[in-house]
Amino acid sequence: MSNSKKHIAIIGAGLVGSLLSIYLIKRGYKVSVYERRADMRKQNLDAGRSINLALSNRGIRALESIGLAEQLKETAIPMHGRMMHSREGKLSFLPYGKEGQFINSISRAGLNKVLMSAAEQQGVEFHFEQRITKVDLENTSIEVHHSQTAADHRLPDVDRPKFDLVIGADGAFSVVRQAMQFTDRFDFSQDFIDHGYKELHIPPGSNSTFQLEKNALHIWPRESFMMIALPNPDGSFTCTLFFPFEGNPSFSALKTNEEISTFLQETFTDAVALMPDASNDYKTNPTSSLVTMKCFPWVKNKTLVIGDAAHAVVPFYGQGMNAGFEDCYKLNQLLDQYNDDWDHVLPEFQMLRKPDTDAIAQLALDNFIEMRDLVADPEFLLRKKIEAKINALYPDQWIPLYSMVTFNENIRYSTAYATGQKQKQIMDEVMKTPDIENKWEHLDFAGIVAKLG
Amino acid sequence: MSNSKKHIAIIGAGLVGSLLSIYLIKRGYKVSVYERRADMRKQNLDAGRSINLALSNRGIRALESIGLAEQLKETAIPMHGRMMHSREGKLSFLPYGKEGQFINSISRAGLNKVLMSAAEQQGVEFHFEQRITKVDLENTSIEVHHSQTAADHRLPDVDRPKFDLVIGADGAFSVVRQAMQFTDRFDFSQDFIDHGYKELHIPPGSNSTFQLEKNALHIWPRESFMMIALPNPDGSFTCTLFFPFEGNPSFSALKTNEEISTFLQETFTDAVALMPDASNDYKTNPTSSLVTMKCFPWVKNKTLVIGDAAHAVVPFYGQGMNAGFEDCYKLNQLLDQYNDDWDHVLPEFQMLRKPDTDAIAQLALDNFIEMRDLVADPEFLLRKKIEAKINALYPDQWIPLYSMVTFNENIRYSTAYATGQKQKQIMDEVMKTPDIENKWEHLDFAGIVAKLG
Repeated sequence: MSNSKKHIAIIGAGLVGSLLSIYLIKRGYKVSVYERRADMRKQNLDAGRSINLALSNRGIRALESIGLAEQLKETAIPMHGRMMHSREGKLSFLPYGKEGQFINSISRAGLNKVLMSAAEQQGVEFHFEQRITKVDLENTSIEVHHSQTAADHRLPDVDRPKFDLVIGADGAFSVVRQAMQFTDRFDFSQDFIDHGYKELHIPPGSNSTFQLEKNALHIWPRESFMMIALPNPDGSFTCTLFFPFEGNPSFSALKTNEEISTFLQETFTDAVALMPDASNDYKTNPTSSLVTMKCFPWVKNKTLVIGDAAHAVVPFYGQGMNAGFEDCYKLNQLLDQYNDDWDHVLPEFQMLRKPDTDAIAQLALDNFIEMRDLVADPEFLLRKKIEAKINALYPDQWIPLYSMVTFNENIRYSTAYATGQKQKQIMDEVMKTPDIENKWEHLDFAGIVAKLG
Repeated sequence: MSNSKKHIAIIGAGLVGSLLSIYLIKRGYKVSVYERRADMRKQNLDAGRSINLALSNRGIRALESIGLAEQLKETAIPMHGRMMHSREGKLSFLPYGKEGQFINSISRAGLNKVLMSAAEQQGVEFHFEQRITKVDLENTSIEVHHSQTAADHRLPDVDRPKFDLVIGADGAFSVVRQAMQFTDRFDFSQDFIDHGYKELHIPPGSNSTFQLEKNALHIWPRESFMMIALPNPDGSFTCTLFFPFEGNPSFSALKTNEEISTFLQETFTDAVALMPDASNDYKTNPTSSLVTMKCFPWVKNKTLVIGDAAHAVVPFYGQGMNAGFEDCYKLNQLLDQYNDDWDHVLPEFQMLRKPDTDAIAQLALDNFIEMRDLVADPEFLLRKKIEAKINALYPDQWIPLYSMVTFNENIRYSTAYATGQKQKQIMDEVMKTPDIENKWEHLDFAGIVAKLG
């Protein structure tokens, strides 16, 4: 059967679902995307998710391969490093990588709309406001309930279309994965961390100027918690407070207006000075939880889960979307390699990606500690400086972990993770050198690199 | 409100649900138990689970506290140790503990029936053939569908009774836990192992004699897999083959009658000689999977999960039922301690039990390797002999791990696990002693014990 005769359903018109639909329509499949929400291009919807995202090399490579990278880069704001804000308002800057390496602040909604429109132009059919009430893994079929607000009232209430392949790209709380969960021998875990998050807002200054350094990801590290801020094209910053649900301080401990206002004021003085109504935003905006989801297999018969549906991670490495885009990129590569023979591609795909997505899940958890605590630690900053020096001397032999993950899309996440573990052991030893603060420029760098093997 | 005014629903009339209903009715609550299946006392049902179980001290302590231990011990068959069967049919016996310490082979159905009847006598209401289709955690209410075969046809099809407390004792695939799974910040994991199991049967000999040693748990350790056998009161043995699903050999590799018959014959020669139709049993009996389930919290509002519903474990330590019974015993103790103040008892209960049930989950996974592989290893057997000797000399200071878990109900699983880890480190060192095979009786036992601290 030629590809054009095959009909693939993608559940979810989010970032990964939309991107994947483009890859598949380009391969000649008939592609139908089912989305629970309304068309975000027509209605101004709260995406229910963070407003901006950090797009980096793995995501860009995928966008390049479908010819959309250049267009999207225009709306992205480069962030060259972390700008740390101390309690006293002192700033310090830690570059992400080498000169010219940066990550990009990009609007989730903007990116999603571009992907959907590009997909539609190529012939992908989008069905909005369609709730999937059942996924039939035996028959590669789904049960679709049309929302009451659905535009097309001629449709019946319930449809049960059948496909050659169903792909769940429906996010961390995937209904497709949920169907798999009740089959035998399906491993699954959901692990929430003790912190939740809440968004706050720094508006543009006069004439749409940026009130903080534009080309940086801002961090207010406060040991057990933190706030971050990413720039938006209109000059505003979206701030996200990552804060414990319980304990002191925590979301539950801050109750009265007075407590909230005093806490924000004292903890994030310089940021709050730029927020017209921080306390009110704090009270009005929702508090959301943060979860790591894992499962295996990703394939049951002719149904696949991909992106967050297969491997939701916490946001602290800025790799959630990038990992999902890389899923699509690698799936497309395998389809090339096996001439669209899905019977080979599907098992290969899950075996290839599972170790990588497990690795990024762990890296993301580890990075929370680095961001909220270590970046304010002089020893940690010295360690980063030494690693940057080693990298400058031996650019191919010693690449810092953050760079492997973020800027080296040809290094698998699982390889980056394993190498990072080794580097950490070596650097732990290096940091024991007496008087390291003064001697670090005269270390035996060749010897250090040699230990990595 | 006095206990008698409070109405508690227990979902599941299995071992844990039935036992718990007795504790609660004795405390003066009104107790209703809802069970999906028919009354096993009236219909001869396949329990869908293993036929016999290993009852040991933790389970016995719970049965004693409700006055049923003596009655149940009458039908139990003591097993004093493991009887290993080599490929060549050579037998070797490894005692479980000291003289007089043993575990008990007991019929799952028999035990369940005794518990249900005792509960009913005390006033517990059992509702059989009731499918719970929804658990409302906000309103402590359940939606009950009466099966079509339900005896009482006057009942409406669906009921939505409300309770003061709902307790899910409905096993590894709990519908109560499932309702919790879709609430925010609920951690959950299900992990299947690569092995499944299948039951086989050795009938009684003439005059109901036992064809293998009666008072032992029999093991055919075969490195990557194993078979075990437990005695039944009628002289038969229930054998369970634990075998990989995939690979070679495995359930999927054995396809033809010829392959099955040859494999069983060559691998378990002495056992198969006692089975009238091993190959046919193999083909007819179902293959089941083995899973570890974990979750947290166990409590949402006024709904609790307990036993396998909260912490299903693989069967290799014979502690699944014992851990569930210990849950009930400890919950009852907390109710004593806090005068039935559930607002204190419920959070305390989950905090107390979670580390213990996590520990037994890990111990059960570890013990599979010990049973299928190590018990056939001379070094391992020597290690056991040395530990038994240390225990004889210092009975209070060094208790072997298996004994702590199985015979020392006053040691928490989590303590046993931590102590076992320390003992393993110490014994790893001891086993490096040159010529240990000949010198082991002259080791510095006092020094070894001292290392445990």
